[in-house]
Amino acid sequence: MKVNKERLKQDFDNIARFGKLDNGGVTRLAFSEEDLKARQYLLDVMKSLNLKVSIDAFGNIRGRREGQFDLPPVMIGSHLDTVPNGGHYDGVIGVIGALEVIRVLNENNIVTKRPIEVINFSCEESSRFRAGTLGSKVMVGKFTKDKLKTSIDKDGISLYDALKQAGYDPDRLEDARINNGDIYAFMEMHIEQGPVLEQEKYQVGIVTAIAAPTRFKVLIEGRADHSGNTPMNMRKDALTGASALILGVEQIAKSEAGERTVGTVGYVYVEPGAMNVVPGKVELGIDIRDINSTDKKVAVKKVIDLIHKIQKQRNLEIKYEILADEEPVVLSNKIISCLENEAKKYGFSYKLMPSGAGHDAMYMTNVTNVGMIFIPSINGVSHNIAEFSRMEDIKMGTDLLLKATIKLAQEECE
Amino acid sequence: MKVNKERLKQDFDNIARFGKLDNGGVTRLAFSEEDLKARQYLLDVMKSLNLKVSIDAFGNIRGRREGQFDLPPVMIGSHLDTVPNGGHYDGVIGVIGALEVIRVLNENNIVTKRPIEVINFSCEESSRFRAGTLGSKVMVGKFTKDKLKTSIDKDGISLYDALKQAGYDPDRLEDARINNGDIYAFMEMHIEQGPVLEQEKYQVGIVTAIAAPTRFKVLIEGRADHSGNTPMNMRKDALTGASALILGVEQIAKSEAGERTVGTVGYVYVEPGAMNVVPGKVELGIDIRDINSTDKKVAVKKVIDLIHKIQKQRNLEIKYEILADEEPVVLSNKIISCLENEAKKYGFSYKLMPSGAGHDAMYMTNVTNVGMIFIPSINGVSHNIAEFSRMEDIKMGTDLLLKATIKLAQEECE
Repeated sequence: MKVNKERLKQDFDNIARFGKLDNGGVTRLAFSEEDLKARQYLLDVMKSLNLKVSIDAFGNIRGRREGQFDLPPVMIGSHLDTVPNGGHYDGVIGVIGALEVIRVLNENNIVTKRPIEVINFSCEESSRFRAGTLGSKVMVGKFTKDKLKTSIDKDGISLYDALKQAGYDPDRLEDARINNGDIYAFMEMHIEQGPVLEQEKYQVGIVTAIAAPTRFKVLIEGRADHSGNTPMNMRKDALTGASALILGVEQIAKSEAGERTVGTVGYVYVEPGAMNVVPGKVELGIDIRDINSTDKKVAVKKVIDLIHKIQKQRNLEIKYEILADEEPVVLSNKIISCLENEAKKYGFSYKLMPSGAGHDAMYMTNVTNVGMIFIPSINGVSHNIAEFSRMEDIKMGTDLLLKATIKLAQEECE
Repeated sequence: MKVNKERLKQDFDNIARFGKLDNGGVTRLAFSEEDLKARQYLLDVMKSLNLKVSIDAFGNIRGRREGQFDLPPVMIGSHLDTVPNGGHYDGVIGVIGALEVIRVLNENNIVTKRPIEVINFSCEESSRFRAGTLGSKVMVGKFTKDKLKTSIDKDGISLYDALKQAGYDPDRLEDARINNGDIYAFMEMHIEQGPVLEQEKYQVGIVTAIAAPTRFKVLIEGRADHSGNTPMNMRKDALTGASALILGVEQIAKSEAGERTVGTVGYVYVEPGAMNVVPGKVELGIDIRDINSTDKKVAVKKVIDLIHKIQKQRNLEIKYEILADEEPVVLSNKIISCLENEAKKYGFSYKLMPSGAGHDAMYMTNVTNVGMIFIPSINGVSHNIAEFSRMEDIKMGTDLLLKATIKLAQEECE
């Protein structure tokens, strides 16, 4: 009993068409026309697989395969929306893998004790409304109705209106809430979005914990001066101050906090930003992550100390705002063990590893036991046309997802 | 015989209206409607002062006050165009100062041996067509007809079309050329655009040399990776590489080249530029200046060495392009002495100083003896609504310009 690579490939190719760009990439923003087409495809497939479909007020799509008993289900899935100009694997493989699990169960006439549900979470990517993993957040009560009208995309469309236009029911958002115990277990298969599995030659990753970011917005104010007429010792250059901070964040993450701490400055805006003007203002974003809460706190503290030091040394005004400061979450030991046992049994080489990226799986830990499977990302690239995972790796991951889903649905992982 | 501050103020206020913004700043881009209005004002004043007006093919406006003899004239002036959202002093004070010199000569019925010409150079600011000091470059043959159609503003209008629309004659650009000997001397009064005169409490600056920039465009290519899932030791972060370069440029200019060397990174573009992505590409601009050619070469060499070092250390691809590498120019000793003598005679405290910024005066050195007067810039600010110079300082500078113009026109500076 194995998954069928051809069928996976077929689903993959079918979904890849929705929002495909001339450069080969894809833009399938949450609730866009392309996303709605992909959702319709998913609904059609679910129906063809005899799943009982339900769609909640936020558009989260669930397809249920009944079990022997009317118990809380094992849920598997991910998301179909993408970033702008993104790749074809992020999110998608978790949904097509879940569909393939159902197909194998159907063709083998397996009846599991517990129901199994396939889920497509709405709006996992933060690109459109500047906030992501919204489907799972809504389900666990971490994103509420009051934010629907204030979440606005770049064209001025609110999340509320986007939901209405898509035919969902934002006025009844609270109906999408689920409670502790409603779901027996949740598993998400996803691309790694990092280079570790490929570089260390593992076939699959079993995720142990999800590192939540602490994010800073930093505003550095110096004085814009003429680049030719301002002697070096009379400058207040916001960009040299920013550079000291950027190198400091790298240094702190590399060797002054935890072994797994990562620290990134991903964007910098310079004002006025002209060749012949000493920069007067800089805004930059800092993203610090760790699965160890203590190590992350150490790194964050050192970054703040460094900001104060640079401010003083360089006579700049530096303000910072902490945009997010979430706690890392640990995934279910029961599911991790179950995945390990199955991987060993079938001879898949696996690595127990953290996820540095956030996923819907993170929020699902609020209401159920959660596991995640990582598929190697070639060159570690994601959110990009160069994003690529091998179909044989996706097949292997789906086989692991299948085995573990059966074990959980049969209550054989206790 | 002194200049009249009220008349200066009147001209200043009149010109400040053309392109004035709600925030108090001004946008008077080269050959724009606002610039053309300011030019018309200048023409009207020139005519009211009985100057003989001529306009060349590039729109450079000259107003001539005849002398006793038909000899090459003493030319004084600057420019009326501004950067977007700029201030009211840059360029303007050199033109209104020159008009006031004529007024004083007229009201005192002074006939000089040599003619005196007031000039407004076209398109001094590089904001509109990405190339500046074009009026003087055209006059000395450093900007030629072949570039008129390829110099395009942000709305897609070529310099050729802008000239046509303004009523000038781009097809006969070469007619604007002047030759060595056509002009006896040129003097430009300008704001300092730096903080030195104010901080060191001088009333006026006498410019000894103009530092020409060496400008680099640098492209750093690393690899865009997920900020959460890419361990620090597996990254190729283009922005940390850029930061090392930015701090290196500062260090080289501060203490590893000449005493007067300045080095600036004025802009940085980061790709993809998202909070949660390790930057894959960075473009930045480096501007190195010195009035000492040897010191500048040392600095440029060190910057290039540093680029190679960072490329190797951080496993990045770094390409650079030298956009400009001009030679610093030394101004006329004869005129510097003349200005010094007059300043001493009238008790103005002056500083002999370089200009870090380029000016039309720089190109005029190709065909004649050149001098420059700097007026203190409060807080060193320019190209900005905060640009400010005190009217009493402008008056004092204009008095110095008047005295030196008379000396030169009377051939008493030999």
